[in-house]
Amino acid sequence: MTIRNDTAVAFFTQLLGAKGVVAEAEDQERYVCDWAGGRLGMPLAVVRPGTTEEVAEVVRYCHEQRIRMVPQGGHTGLVQGALPDDHIAEVVISLERMTRIRRLDPLNFTMAVDGGCILEEVKRAAEENDCFFPLSLGAQGSCQIGGNIATNAGGVNVLRYGMMRELVLGLEVVLPNGEIWSSMRALHKDNRGYSLQQLLIGSEGTLGIVTGAVLKLTPRPQQSQTALLAVPSVEAAVRLYALARRVGSDLLSAFELIPRQCLELAFEAAPQLSDPLDEVYPNYVLLELAASGPVDLSVMLECLLEAGMEEEVVLDGVLASSIAQADQLWLIREGMVEGQLLRGEHLRTDISVPISAIAECVEQAAAAVTTLSPNSLLIAYGHIGDGNLHINVLPAAETPGEALPALFEQLEGAIFTVVDGFDGSISAEHGIGRSKQAAYLARLSSTEQRLLTSIKEVFDPDELMGAGRILPLAERQLLSNIH
Amino acid sequence: MTIRNDTAVAFFTQLLGAKGVVAEAEDQERYVCDWAGGRLGMPLAVVRPGTTEEVAEVVRYCHEQRIRMVPQGGHTGLVQGALPDDHIAEVVISLERMTRIRRLDPLNFTMAVDGGCILEEVKRAAEENDCFFPLSLGAQGSCQIGGNIATNAGGVNVLRYGMMRELVLGLEVVLPNGEIWSSMRALHKDNRGYSLQQLLIGSEGTLGIVTGAVLKLTPRPQQSQTALLAVPSVEAAVRLYALARRVGSDLLSAFELIPRQCLELAFEAAPQLSDPLDEVYPNYVLLELAASGPVDLSVMLECLLEAGMEEEVVLDGVLASSIAQADQLWLIREGMVEGQLLRGEHLRTDISVPISAIAECVEQAAAAVTTLSPNSLLIAYGHIGDGNLHINVLPAAETPGEALPALFEQLEGAIFTVVDGFDGSISAEHGIGRSKQAAYLARLSSTEQRLLTSIKEVFDPDELMGAGRILPLAERQLLSNIH
Repeated sequence: MTIRNDTAVAFFTQLLGAKGVVAEAEDQERYVCDWAGGRLGMPLAVVRPGTTEEVAEVVRYCHEQRIRMVPQGGHTGLVQGALPDDHIAEVVISLERMTRIRRLDPLNFTMAVDGGCILEEVKRAAEENDCFFPLSLGAQGSCQIGGNIATNAGGVNVLRYGMMRELVLGLEVVLPNGEIWSSMRALHKDNRGYSLQQLLIGSEGTLGIVTGAVLKLTPRPQQSQTALLAVPSVEAAVRLYALARRVGSDLLSAFELIPRQCLELAFEAAPQLSDPLDEVYPNYVLLELAASGPVDLSVMLECLLEAGMEEEVVLDGVLASSIAQADQLWLIREGMVEGQLLRGEHLRTDISVPISAIAECVEQAAAAVTTLSPNSLLIAYGHIGDGNLHINVLPAAETPGEALPALFEQLEGAIFTVVDGFDGSISAEHGIGRSKQAAYLARLSSTEQRLLTSIKEVFDPDELMGAGRILPLAERQLLSNIH
Repeated sequence: MTIRNDTAVAFFTQLLGAKGVVAEAEDQERYVCDWAGGRLGMPLAVVRPGTTEEVAEVVRYCHEQRIRMVPQGGHTGLVQGALPDDHIAEVVISLERMTRIRRLDPLNFTMAVDGGCILEEVKRAAEENDCFFPLSLGAQGSCQIGGNIATNAGGVNVLRYGMMRELVLGLEVVLPNGEIWSSMRALHKDNRGYSLQQLLIGSEGTLGIVTGAVLKLTPRPQQSQTALLAVPSVEAAVRLYALARRVGSDLLSAFELIPRQCLELAFEAAPQLSDPLDEVYPNYVLLELAASGPVDLSVMLECLLEAGMEEEVVLDGVLASSIAQADQLWLIREGMVEGQLLRGEHLRTDISVPISAIAECVEQAAAAVTTLSPNSLLIAYGHIGDGNLHINVLPAAETPGEALPALFEQLEGAIFTVVDGFDGSISAEHGIGRSKQAAYLARLSSTEQRLLTSIKEVFDPDELMGAGRILPLAERQLLSNIH
């Protein structure tokens, strides 16, 4: 522990009190190791400010002392953005003590919250006021709103309600120099000047720390219909989606592609699950319709099934006749993610292409993967309505562990090349952080790189916040700031 | 005409051909006078490039020669942003020849278009493919998509579909130095790095020229229900809105407040209109439900009426029983704007507050206006669902014309002060341009001003594009660049 570290910790302790600082290495464990088990280095300290003003004071101190900082939410990101660095010790600024629901206005359909609020708590508070906050993620029990905003989170309801970007009306942000910037107004429309708010959303903690937000709510759905439909092919799933969009008006809230292998993976992870259909089919679609008003959703669903059968894009299906049965169907969606983890290390991707190109993209990706690694298992599942698939690869059991990193790199490169062919994205919802940086930069035009770097310089000329995430460190920074 | 002008015109003519340049003052009329009749100065030239590459070449030339430019769409803006300057002659870059629909993909629900496409043409092309582009504005017969994006246009369907910002998936922009920046991908989700796209949307032609865009479509509604409901008060209209959001699920596509005086104004402008209800009421709501699928919208509307009567927020109403009758009701909404123009010069505002504060805001604004100008007529109408009202003032007939500018300034200031009291916005959808600049800057924090100015510098360090719009000219620019 260097002198600088001691001085900083003493300052933070005086400012925030004992509960506001985690100084000892053994207590820092949960701040240095993310959801996916990744870890890099140890922090200089972990601070846990309780108010926006405290966050600002911490940041001002770090800014003056040229100490690097990394904001941390629920630590459920998948691109290593919130992990403390392994070269230069950073101060982890955790928002976990800032969990206040500031104001909920059901007539305005808005809710002002602290950045550290857990997503599930936000959803619950909305529901208690007969409203609904639509962001819906596997990690919602631990991810925080500030992190959701910093990473522009997605999830299963995007096709109806949009990404996090579209659910934020106001923001409060502590900038890298400790100034507080705020647009905390509960306005559904505000068209004044350049949207700093939109620039900050999705900046992954590199331009500022989200300490508060005004969220957009909708009426709470009073009813929903969930169905698991068997479809003959990925292409049929895409055609079924177009039908579902039309028949479902704007009431379609989820439309997930689930290949057969994913069902099997879910059964492995959750043995209490059983096959919802009598026969085995190559692909399934899990869909949901929801409404807050008097609509007969079952008529809508029957209409869709009928049209789907007629167009031969639906082979079979089960409609949940109760909430319990619907939950059971959604357990498949969750279980298949767990099932992949149980199979051990695997390649995860998060790509998007135009919806109309999904089937061909999956086909080409499967061919590329088979060529490189004939015995591995490719699974392609996800959000058809967003053109967003997770094309993952589970390596053959016989592949030696030490060969995996190189194999994954090769496979990822091959999948990304396929995605490039459709003008797709190598990161549809997970962001860039560290793990997608190389692939991201390789696809960036020099014009865009210049603009992005200049914007980072406007907000954080000394590269003190989230340094090295999204954009690489500027050359000069690699030479200085070592302690 | 200076030598520099001749040289520039010669260059443009060689580059674009005769049809690409409007050099003579008499032909420039429609480029120097906007929709609302505003005019400032004459341009150095008007150029009409036909392709993105031509736009880029024009801009590169202007950038090299340090000639100021102003992009121009359909010229229907309300804040004088596209008017050529009166101090320094600018080159008007009109997109009107770039009207190509590049690609429409109904399976992906996307459409790629040139920046100069007229909004109505875009809507028509979408409909021909059984899709729908939801942006809906009074000016849609002449406004252009590029301008809609540059100004982040709003309109009557925002409560359901969002502002223009939420309808754009990809952009193609010529930057102030002539470089082309593009995110022209037809992706519903793409979460890579800072969103330059969102920063450019709403930048009002000061950071670049929108030459192309990928737009998000929805299924084409197959049915709609329109109703004009009489409500006892503005507060009742707000409560009715909350009901309508719930009962209407997400199928409510418009909800407009229309005070009685606006009905009268509509009758003045369109004498063929007649009062749709037998009695006279103080306020009305014009609402629309629309769906692409099998939903019984009339049941929904009956449900809403019943609940509204029970809660005493609906007094009376007429449901359009045919498309012709619905169009007739919408004519009232359009006619009342024309009716205001017929009454002569008047104050227009475009404010927003939280929906729950609308009634009190209107009350306070009316009181403030009455105090200052007892005989003038205040009308407050607009988009309840967005908290966005146009609080306009028609001066008393006896007010002398030369007294109007000072009166309007005073009244506007008083209304804005009321809006400030509710943490509202002085520009909900019209943008800043020139006419809102003073009010905008007066409310800008020094932090925000510094960030915005720095961002402008990143894109346009010499202040050559849209100079003086949104942000004031930097001091140094006021002293140089005169020719």
